[in-house]
Amino acid sequence: MTETNNLIGIAQINTKAGDIEYNSKKVIKYINQAQSIGLDLIVFPELTLTGFPLENAIENHPIIADENLKWLDNVAKVTTETTALVGFVEPCECENITQRKYYDSVAVLKNGQIIDVIRKSTIPVHCEFNDFNCITPSNSSNKIININGIKYQIIIGKDYNNIEQNSDVILNLCAFPTRIKNESEKHKFLSTLAKKYSQTFVYVNQVGANDRASFDGTSRAFDKNGKLFACAKSFEEQLLIVNLHNNSGEIYHSEILSTQLAQIDFSLDYEPDMARTYKTLIQGIKDYFGKTGFKRAVLGLSGGLDSTVCAVLLVDALGKENVYGVSMPSKITSQTSKDDAQILAQNLGIGFSVAPIKDMFDTTNNCLQNLFTNVEKHWDCRYKQSFTADNIQARSRAIFLWGVSNEFDSCLPIATSDKSEAYMGYATINGDMSGGFAPIADITKTKLFALAKWLNKNREQKDVIPQSVIEKRPGAELAINPKTGKPLIAEDALMPYEFLDEVIWRIENKKENYKDMLKSEFLYEKTHNLSKEQKMQWLDKFYRRMSTALYKKSIMPPYVIVDSPSYNSKQPITSCSINYKGI
Amino acid sequence: MTETNNLIGIAQINTKAGDIEYNSKKVIKYINQAQSIGLDLIVFPELTLTGFPLENAIENHPIIADENLKWLDNVAKVTTETTALVGFVEPCECENITQRKYYDSVAVLKNGQIIDVIRKSTIPVHCEFNDFNCITPSNSSNKIININGIKYQIIIGKDYNNIEQNSDVILNLCAFPTRIKNESEKHKFLSTLAKKYSQTFVYVNQVGANDRASFDGTSRAFDKNGKLFACAKSFEEQLLIVNLHNNSGEIYHSEILSTQLAQIDFSLDYEPDMARTYKTLIQGIKDYFGKTGFKRAVLGLSGGLDSTVCAVLLVDALGKENVYGVSMPSKITSQTSKDDAQILAQNLGIGFSVAPIKDMFDTTNNCLQNLFTNVEKHWDCRYKQSFTADNIQARSRAIFLWGVSNEFDSCLPIATSDKSEAYMGYATINGDMSGGFAPIADITKTKLFALAKWLNKNREQKDVIPQSVIEKRPGAELAINPKTGKPLIAEDALMPYEFLDEVIWRIENKKENYKDMLKSEFLYEKTHNLSKEQKMQWLDKFYRRMSTALYKKSIMPPYVIVDSPSYNSKQPITSCSINYKGI
Repeated sequence: MTETNNLIGIAQINTKAGDIEYNSKKVIKYINQAQSIGLDLIVFPELTLTGFPLENAIENHPIIADENLKWLDNVAKVTTETTALVGFVEPCECENITQRKYYDSVAVLKNGQIIDVIRKSTIPVHCEFNDFNCITPSNSSNKIININGIKYQIIIGKDYNNIEQNSDVILNLCAFPTRIKNESEKHKFLSTLAKKYSQTFVYVNQVGANDRASFDGTSRAFDKNGKLFACAKSFEEQLLIVNLHNNSGEIYHSEILSTQLAQIDFSLDYEPDMARTYKTLIQGIKDYFGKTGFKRAVLGLSGGLDSTVCAVLLVDALGKENVYGVSMPSKITSQTSKDDAQILAQNLGIGFSVAPIKDMFDTTNNCLQNLFTNVEKHWDCRYKQSFTADNIQARSRAIFLWGVSNEFDSCLPIATSDKSEAYMGYATINGDMSGGFAPIADITKTKLFALAKWLNKNREQKDVIPQSVIEKRPGAELAINPKTGKPLIAEDALMPYEFLDEVIWRIENKKENYKDMLKSEFLYEKTHNLSKEQKMQWLDKFYRRMSTALYKKSIMPPYVIVDSPSYNSKQPITSCSINYKGI
Repeated sequence: MTETNNLIGIAQINTKAGDIEYNSKKVIKYINQAQSIGLDLIVFPELTLTGFPLENAIENHPIIADENLKWLDNVAKVTTETTALVGFVEPCECENITQRKYYDSVAVLKNGQIIDVIRKSTIPVHCEFNDFNCITPSNSSNKIININGIKYQIIIGKDYNNIEQNSDVILNLCAFPTRIKNESEKHKFLSTLAKKYSQTFVYVNQVGANDRASFDGTSRAFDKNGKLFACAKSFEEQLLIVNLHNNSGEIYHSEILSTQLAQIDFSLDYEPDMARTYKTLIQGIKDYFGKTGFKRAVLGLSGGLDSTVCAVLLVDALGKENVYGVSMPSKITSQTSKDDAQILAQNLGIGFSVAPIKDMFDTTNNCLQNLFTNVEKHWDCRYKQSFTADNIQARSRAIFLWGVSNEFDSCLPIATSDKSEAYMGYATINGDMSGGFAPIADITKTKLFALAKWLNKNREQKDVIPQSVIEKRPGAELAINPKTGKPLIAEDALMPYEFLDEVIWRIENKKENYKDMLKSEFLYEKTHNLSKEQKMQWLDKFYRRMSTALYKKSIMPPYVIVDSPSYNSKQPITSCSINYKGI
């Protein structure tokens, strides 16, 4: 018999959604490690064996649940003296509930056996993922286990209503997606729980990304006064060891926690969020590629901000040898843009070549003009002015990138659309919004500028992004502005990004509507002279474009959510006639 | 004062999701009509003013709820002696529930006033749409209203647990999506409720489609013995008048109800479902185009089954003058395919032209070969054999169709992928799976053959589909099979469609897994000699392809669900490593 040492391990692991063998083998590895150290207890996150989220996969493929039971037995078999707490999906035997077939459970494993099972009672009615559609709340109340004289109370996810007074340690097994602006609040809340129940509080969270869902780990332990005494790394798999005897452990990471405050006003000062934004993006890319078996990325380098930031992020996530940039200039592309693309590629040390789209454009345009002439005989509704030529350019480029993806092993083409553009539908279907992954789809343009500056300052290699990329006003360089004779600037076609991004911010964070915004003073108004007419015109344009962009949003490639779960929400495309202005 | 006449109107209307002005004006029109006839009561479906589903739109844009209150007042003002029951979203004043802010309510309107409000108690925990995420269940129990001496009990949606004994008539206001195989069961269930409570039972259902969600209307009334005595049309907006005095009304539609039976075994006899399948598809296309403001469709006519059936459906939904077919042959395209495309267009009387893709293919291929040579210097992972050439063809065609869509007013390009292909990822990204709408995305290939035959037999104009289209074995004609020297046949690349479609059927309807299917006897096995090795090989291929097709499924264009809500479900792309075979 090992002696009690009051040491517990927090196994903050990165699981693959649905890959139960992979997850179980990882759990076994950590259990073996815990046993070799002689820990009393090792704790894994909620739903560890299945991974989270799985959305509706278990409903359609119940074998996932069957398999996780078989693997749970295998995991149990390796346990000896160290108790292990492992989250899994437990088939439910209630006869009356036909639609929800499972519990969200935690198995208590010791000496080769499953010695107890604890079930979650509070199932969220509103989760951004669909997993809880198949989960039944449990009425069972025995959530306390006794190990070497210490009473541990097991709380799964947000089961906080069921915390009891009479235990020594609260173990909170979670899989909470990270949201930049909620982290500070979450931290305070967990600390308050420890204090309220006057118990040691141990929060064990999943790490890693599954498609849009990103988990930051940052597992931690508070003493019964609510004081943090141990904290795992953010965005990294880690076994954090906590000593309950003297309430000690390592604090690997805390600065990230302290900086995240919910904003009352829109601000262009994104700096406090940047480290976390960067890590969320890198983890999102790395895990999407890694978990789907892709290794390489090919992207168009236009010399513009979007593709530039994407390239830097891809290099940091995948390694420079796995990123290839293609400059695909047209006759509209400026020399600065061409130069900036090349300089960036050189700075990053990535593969790079130039593939002009002139031939593609000319051939496509010729073929299309013939076709249009024919269609015109039948339909009397040809536009006097159209975006056809703009779109041919963007689509020709996408054909090049998808071609490389088809021709080279494990290579994904990258969609470089940002969030401001996505809201406005300011991207070409089958063009720049097409790709296997969209790294910056949840980053607005003004935040992207801040990120570019941050990258130049905070990466080991400084100033990889040419200053002119950060300084020039963004534009797709697909058309010439007849007024200026120069390439059309996006802000001229849309509205100032500073204004646009504040509209998005107000919708997502304050649920403001058209009339609210008309009344609110925008940051832009503090620094510019803005007439009411102009403001109304921009708001009109925003809502009109947002409504017609619903289709584009529905076919957006996969991306990781950084800021806002509301961006992840759904809306029917046929709801495009909503009158956001009201009567 | 009008005298009581025991006449009630069932206003089975087609609403636009979120377009409250449109919905309200329609409601007012029907109320005025009811008043001019002198009905006692007019009943609208659940959530009439907002339309359903709206997914997460109300959460992000609370103005939708504000507006529906304002319009409810406007609607109330037009009422005189005829009572009107109108579904709406009611803001909830409970302080404790922060996450769910609304009731799913019905307003009782009379003499210019809102005289009562009834709230839904049973909120589904698992709905395929996200609308109920923001709906709070109500505890209020007063659901009985008295009109001219008759006691009406109002039941919203599936609030069947709250039916009371002491009323004369049960009014069930619903917005139930239609599913072919559930209609018979639903009908029986409603009849049973009437009998159980020994009351007249009136079921009022929404009609019309919003994106994937399709509602068939088919509102109906049962006497207290459960006997149907009135039934509205399916898939059509209608005011059905029911006489409660002598339990009479019109039965406009009942044959559709009687034919839909849940299947125990997979069958190629799709005939009993065809009329309903056809109407669901036509309504789906019509409402998607109509509600998003599009009028015209352009599609590629390959001479194959998918594009052929799409063309016929589009003609029936949009009118032949609004459909344009483009034949885009390559050197692989057979003469029969070219002929079939042209014959079909002639038969349908639609606009048609031929736009060969040779120039596009040659130019793209040349440009790509140059690019590949450059990339190869950097990456040592070029495939020996690739699908690049196949994909260039499909993408060139999509560029043509999107070009037409960009150049002509209110015109959408059509994605012609079917459900069997979508499951297998047997379609080209930015190619044939790209479009503004995908009419047959929920129809498997074997069902599509049956639909083609049905269309030839049941449309007013017979035999529009050339027999050779129905007889030939499908293939994308993108590549030559080296073994035969002829275009590659899809079934050779995949597996027999009869087998493939049964696998899909077993997953969706029986939740069978790999091992279950290995044991089950397939229809294919009854008519063919199938070795266990071959069966395993096909199943292996199915699951492998299904796993890697998750990304393609995530960017599928909008379509209407015909058979299976499970097809509408979500699964993370990173869950591609699920071991469907088990250990």
